[in-house]
Amino acid sequence: MKKNFVIVLAPDSFKESMTAKDACEAMEKGIKKVNKNITCIHIPMADGGEGTMQSLVDATGGEVYSLPVMGPLGDQVEACYGILGDGQTGVIEMASASGIHLVATERRNPLLTTTFGTGQLIHACLDKGVKKLLIGIGGSATNDGGAGVVQALGGKLLDSYGKELGFGGGELGKLATIDLAHLDARLKDITIDVACDVNTPLCGKYGASYMFGPQKGATPQMVTLLDDNLRHYADSIKRQLNKDIIDVQGAGAAGGLGAGLMAFLNGTLKEGIQLVIDYVNLEEKIKEADMVWTGEGSIDCQTQYGKTPFGVATIAKKYQKPVIAFAGRIGNDIDELYEKIDAIFGIMPEATTLDNALLHGKQNLERTAENVARFMRLLS
Amino acid sequence: MKKNFVIVLAPDSFKESMTAKDACEAMEKGIKKVNKNITCIHIPMADGGEGTMQSLVDATGGEVYSLPVMGPLGDQVEACYGILGDGQTGVIEMASASGIHLVATERRNPLLTTTFGTGQLIHACLDKGVKKLLIGIGGSATNDGGAGVVQALGGKLLDSYGKELGFGGGELGKLATIDLAHLDARLKDITIDVACDVNTPLCGKYGASYMFGPQKGATPQMVTLLDDNLRHYADSIKRQLNKDIIDVQGAGAAGGLGAGLMAFLNGTLKEGIQLVIDYVNLEEKIKEADMVWTGEGSIDCQTQYGKTPFGVATIAKKYQKPVIAFAGRIGNDIDELYEKIDAIFGIMPEATTLDNALLHGKQNLERTAENVARFMRLLS
Repeated sequence: MKKNFVIVLAPDSFKESMTAKDACEAMEKGIKKVNKNITCIHIPMADGGEGTMQSLVDATGGEVYSLPVMGPLGDQVEACYGILGDGQTGVIEMASASGIHLVATERRNPLLTTTFGTGQLIHACLDKGVKKLLIGIGGSATNDGGAGVVQALGGKLLDSYGKELGFGGGELGKLATIDLAHLDARLKDITIDVACDVNTPLCGKYGASYMFGPQKGATPQMVTLLDDNLRHYADSIKRQLNKDIIDVQGAGAAGGLGAGLMAFLNGTLKEGIQLVIDYVNLEEKIKEADMVWTGEGSIDCQTQYGKTPFGVATIAKKYQKPVIAFAGRIGNDIDELYEKIDAIFGIMPEATTLDNALLHGKQNLERTAENVARFMRLLS
Repeated sequence: MKKNFVIVLAPDSFKESMTAKDACEAMEKGIKKVNKNITCIHIPMADGGEGTMQSLVDATGGEVYSLPVMGPLGDQVEACYGILGDGQTGVIEMASASGIHLVATERRNPLLTTTFGTGQLIHACLDKGVKKLLIGIGGSATNDGGAGVVQALGGKLLDSYGKELGFGGGELGKLATIDLAHLDARLKDITIDVACDVNTPLCGKYGASYMFGPQKGATPQMVTLLDDNLRHYADSIKRQLNKDIIDVQGAGAAGGLGAGLMAFLNGTLKEGIQLVIDYVNLEEKIKEADMVWTGEGSIDCQTQYGKTPFGVATIAKKYQKPVIAFAGRIGNDIDELYEKIDAIFGIMPEATTLDNALLHGKQNLERTAENVARFMRLLS
């Protein structure tokens, strides 16, 4: 092994067990038990889903802020956002304010749930003076096309009597006039990236309401109404703002929040993992490294579709760097992953309960990392 | 990697999941998915404990035979023994005929249990014309000092009235005369190795009866009697056969069967793993190889005390060969193993039940072997 061997540690979080930062630290501890001369570059990763804000804050030395906002059903919830190390970039996960996990199963009703709280988080970021905003939009409780976000930021959505619409996807059918005169002016000066991992269009059988309405509590009748309402909403946007969003892939993400962020805030939808890769300058760091280690709580046949280990490995392979991955769970049918990932190691030391596995994630990852480092020393 | 890279595959069985032979095959399958040019030498291993007969038969292309014998309490049980590929070596596990697993908990009583069935297995091996016998003596239900073995092979243990003793450790106190006139004469021409992993002496507080009597069903009163009886037995042997076994380390193994095999059959007690290493010519094969893979169902802080992975690794390190180990379970405090084993990989793909883990042992080992082979290819 050459003298100053550099390993980029770029894992996702191991959900419910450790953050991506924790995972980097566990990997380095294992490596250093074997070879103190290896340099470890920590890049806590994410793919735009849960944990993205924390990982980007950790990767850049930023800060997390929390504040009370309106939850999906109008009740107050404590939500958070991050300001990255540059002081100019905000990161929001919509689920923090408007996520499905915030609503008890029996109260879930996408006719009523609103993204207003997500708009309040955007507002808080604007107050911090950000120039750039990354919004992750997975895990929503809503089907309101992002109407709540617009309302929270000063936009007015009026019915034919000039009265402001109430909250929720059930109200959008009444939309007559869009008035953006009072929309927060600071939005004009910032760039908004929307991390979005589904190709869902806004409307139709494969659109937001039909595909994801039921899991948010919609009955079949509600689904039809919600779909009609989003179509009316898109028509109004097209007529009044001259923006055609109805067929854009991803417009239906997060109950149409994708569409709303594009239409009202000039947001650009991108694949989550690609955004994170850009935000943490992963490519530059990998270019200078000798090897790349990644990982995630679970690695399976879905991993090739926008998950962190595959995204990281794809960059690494662009520069012919060896890549190994660690996982708490290795699923079946993973052969395609080997096109980019050289080897995958499970970290479980024995048959045990999931609770116990989650509890000991750090030591299991550390031990496995140590043994991979031992093996490297042996062969080099 | 050099052109004709040779890996010796020398795992123990993964208990309740796969035999050592299965483990060799799973390892090779994983390796061959990555590199068809690696030569794999299969050496199913064991350490003298459960699985030793099967592994030695598999390692040498021998055969397993089964026959009805007397069980520990006199009822008939089906037991088996192996004849190795050379046709001249028999392998017996005493537990097959006289093991604790053959007696229901409530019937366990070392005053009564006999090693007679083990003697019958030896007799069957003699009938096959063996010149050499390996007897593994773990897991006994007995505390009879091997008296049953002697009785099964034609020796007579008589009381002061010239009457033959009954079965079990409770009878030994009556021993007056040892008459070996009719002991199977073929025993004189064979070598007997006894695989024994405990240092237990025959008598006393750290002897067979006190240490292992209770787990075989002895009450405190029985323990005292059993210990007195073994002492009387050893005294008789010393006086009449001129053999002093009472202080020999391991004489107390398997309820004194160690002592009996030494005294009556000229058996030699040796460490199980060393015997197996000799019987399969492991050292010669490792000498010619480039790398050694081993493994066992469980690897933990006990592994350094006579278990297969450490025994195999010790030979490998004598020739500076890289060694890696695989395990279904990796325990804590394994740092000392790294003195001989270069890296240890767990094969569990996720948190799951033990039953499920045991059921999928082969595919889990194959997948892990494949990834280690991938990693090797990467680094070589």
